[in-house]
Amino acid sequence: MTDFNSTVVALKDALGDKVSTGVSVLDLHASDEAHFKPARPDAVIFPESTDDVVNIVKRCAADQCPIIPYGVGTSLEGHIIPVRGGVTVDTSRMNRVLQVNSDDMDAVVQPGVTRKQLNEALKTTGLMFTVDPGADATIGGMAATRASGTNAVRYGTMRENVMALEVVLADGRVIRTGTRARKSSAGYDLTRLFVGSEGTLGLMTELTVRLFGQPEMIAAATCRFDSVEGAVNTVIQAIQLGIPLARIELIDTLSIRALNAYNEDMNLTEAPHLFLEFHGTENGVAEQIELFKELSNDGGGHEFQWATKNEDRTALWRARHDAYFATKALRPGCEGYVTDSCVPISQLAECIKETEKAVKKSGLTAPLIGHVGDGNFHLAILIDGSPKELAQAKALANDISSLTLSLGGTVTGEHGVGIGKRPYMLEEHGDAYSVMGDLKKTFDPLNIFNPGKLVSVN
Amino acid sequence: MTDFNSTVVALKDALGDKVSTGVSVLDLHASDEAHFKPARPDAVIFPESTDDVVNIVKRCAADQCPIIPYGVGTSLEGHIIPVRGGVTVDTSRMNRVLQVNSDDMDAVVQPGVTRKQLNEALKTTGLMFTVDPGADATIGGMAATRASGTNAVRYGTMRENVMALEVVLADGRVIRTGTRARKSSAGYDLTRLFVGSEGTLGLMTELTVRLFGQPEMIAAATCRFDSVEGAVNTVIQAIQLGIPLARIELIDTLSIRALNAYNEDMNLTEAPHLFLEFHGTENGVAEQIELFKELSNDGGGHEFQWATKNEDRTALWRARHDAYFATKALRPGCEGYVTDSCVPISQLAECIKETEKAVKKSGLTAPLIGHVGDGNFHLAILIDGSPKELAQAKALANDISSLTLSLGGTVTGEHGVGIGKRPYMLEEHGDAYSVMGDLKKTFDPLNIFNPGKLVSVN
Repeated sequence: MTDFNSTVVALKDALGDKVSTGVSVLDLHASDEAHFKPARPDAVIFPESTDDVVNIVKRCAADQCPIIPYGVGTSLEGHIIPVRGGVTVDTSRMNRVLQVNSDDMDAVVQPGVTRKQLNEALKTTGLMFTVDPGADATIGGMAATRASGTNAVRYGTMRENVMALEVVLADGRVIRTGTRARKSSAGYDLTRLFVGSEGTLGLMTELTVRLFGQPEMIAAATCRFDSVEGAVNTVIQAIQLGIPLARIELIDTLSIRALNAYNEDMNLTEAPHLFLEFHGTENGVAEQIELFKELSNDGGGHEFQWATKNEDRTALWRARHDAYFATKALRPGCEGYVTDSCVPISQLAECIKETEKAVKKSGLTAPLIGHVGDGNFHLAILIDGSPKELAQAKALANDISSLTLSLGGTVTGEHGVGIGKRPYMLEEHGDAYSVMGDLKKTFDPLNIFNPGKLVSVN
Repeated sequence: MTDFNSTVVALKDALGDKVSTGVSVLDLHASDEAHFKPARPDAVIFPESTDDVVNIVKRCAADQCPIIPYGVGTSLEGHIIPVRGGVTVDTSRMNRVLQVNSDDMDAVVQPGVTRKQLNEALKTTGLMFTVDPGADATIGGMAATRASGTNAVRYGTMRENVMALEVVLADGRVIRTGTRARKSSAGYDLTRLFVGSEGTLGLMTELTVRLFGQPEMIAAATCRFDSVEGAVNTVIQAIQLGIPLARIELIDTLSIRALNAYNEDMNLTEAPHLFLEFHGTENGVAEQIELFKELSNDGGGHEFQWATKNEDRTALWRARHDAYFATKALRPGCEGYVTDSCVPISQLAECIKETEKAVKKSGLTAPLIGHVGDGNFHLAILIDGSPKELAQAKALANDISSLTLSLGGTVTGEHGVGIGKRPYMLEEHGDAYSVMGDLKKTFDPLNIFNPGKLVSVN
């Protein structure tokens, strides 16, 4: 591996104590939440402004030193691992909410602002930022991976919720893409090109995101089902009937066991469940619930447990959000190998059924949860990190990826490509994958931006 | 201008009577709906398959002959005018609805399918394609210009409604972007890069579009206001309160006069109006109407006239859709010079007020209508086509563009760039405009795809 000592020295000269080479700091930036092999950066830099980022990019471009953007490290596909060394740009000091435009229902933030921080800042406005991947990720990281999560079925993913960006390009130029106007036909959609680009095309230094009004009424519930199939079919019908579900999450039996064990107040029957949330006016929510109940009765649903009080709702969704850690606790010390299938909803029941078969055949422990309203679900394959189990998990994930693609889906509904999903991209995209490579070369001819992730350029 | 005779001969050899050089056909493809100077193509080709398109692109690439895509010619920014000659690719024979996936609420169509044709094909499914720019444009043309229209406030623009594409690239390769899954984090968002690219990056040969369920209840109405300001403020409040308006259109006094004159059954008071539509359950629509009425009373609204019967609703929206032709009929024989401001909604009242002042000062006749729920409105400046009036209209449009940009908006909310809005792109995008130029060169190094439109490459 190339040595970037002189780059680090130059950056220290320019940026002083914003540059750290302390071993504990390097280690903290060497891995994400998943099973990938850690790799230390040569330095971690904590820029405080767009100008700092420009200085970093110019120096790194001159030295052909990799730049890896870092939010809070909750990635699941190895995005933030410096596989070729270089400097990690940690956005934690660029964490200001720059504007809250209540009248326009948007906010302008620096990339290091987390979603909870933004919602805290919005508390008195009656508005909310809806994209919610579970983890308290940064808005920058969420935009970079085109994140979504539980609310996407109603309010969209980062694709729909990022309106405009400030981006530092590989030559150090700072561009602005998009405006705060709600729509535009003014040329190529650069905003959406950067959203989901995983730090491989440029570094986002400012993001304008869409906000929504807090609904008059929120009702959340859990509902037990006789079978995963019944639950999934209920979801499919609800979507097709146009019930504007705000959240609809499938939790399989094993995951319910994990949640019960992880949360002392939780004591759900060990069976597949849907976790639901309805938003609207009081009457509107009542209508949605009525309709959904009819469907769930037909699908073998029982025992609606309502969380109407704010704290009960919060507890319910915290439990859902902690599901990854709860399921990992099923096997203490294990690593998680996470799949991320997303298929057209008509194929969801089939995809889950075949996935369950493949898990059974593999002999591995792999609880299943999903944002089923979008046709998206995850397995968390729990492995001990040994080469043997890693290989078994990989084989299972391969089978599920093939299955997903054969059903017209994508192997990464919301976690991004990183290094984990890169091997499947050619199969998923065909010739379009080489077009992505061309784009990468156009924006980043020296391949300094997060090299080794998403695309294959040499 | 270069002569592409030999290209046309070669294409005739390859494609037979799919190639036309009849003068009337060339003339029909020489201009769009707006004021731009016509220019004939060297030939018009009517491909019937993706293979035909590949053949056209390969031949034209070899000869560096421009290719101009053409739907039904309802563009307003000169997109389809062959300003450098070459061949026009008319998609009217690629007009098959290939799939209607009711369960997934999507459809796969060829680019020449028009929006009315698609909705006709959906009639028995309970589903609808919602993007509605007024004209019965082709889905291909609408995707190419990132069109929107009256329903976008509720259901989104072509940006949100195109899920996947088949595209022929400049080297003749055929790629597929996106899938029918509702979301994806699988790399760069090529779908949204092609949407709005106006035929300058590749030719779309297949489009997968999102559908929505037809609402249980639809109610449409007109509401008269004392002032444009009162109407606009009512809209702003309705949006901020989160009333899920399906359509909310502003029609100024002059436009009302034009609509009354153009439609024999229409007899609205000559004053600013909002045209509205509410979608939902019966109770939901009743709630929306109740809430909206309160707001409109405060804003100086009177005389709600309801169009509850299907035919009355259809008549109302047909009148709205014909507004461009109705306003042009105010001055027989005139040409339309159309502006397309879109601003953050907090700036809308100011933008419209200043626009009205500028119109008054100019002395020109320029009725104003708008998709005000999105912050988007148009002037149709009615000119006689003389150099004098063209210059006056241009000066007025310049003033309005500067005003729009100063208020944080875009000069093209939904009509695209073409040749008409190209002069404003550098001011709107700054350095990001040169990035668009880089993208153009990456996809189309020979500049054969709709040259002279959207970007500036040499």
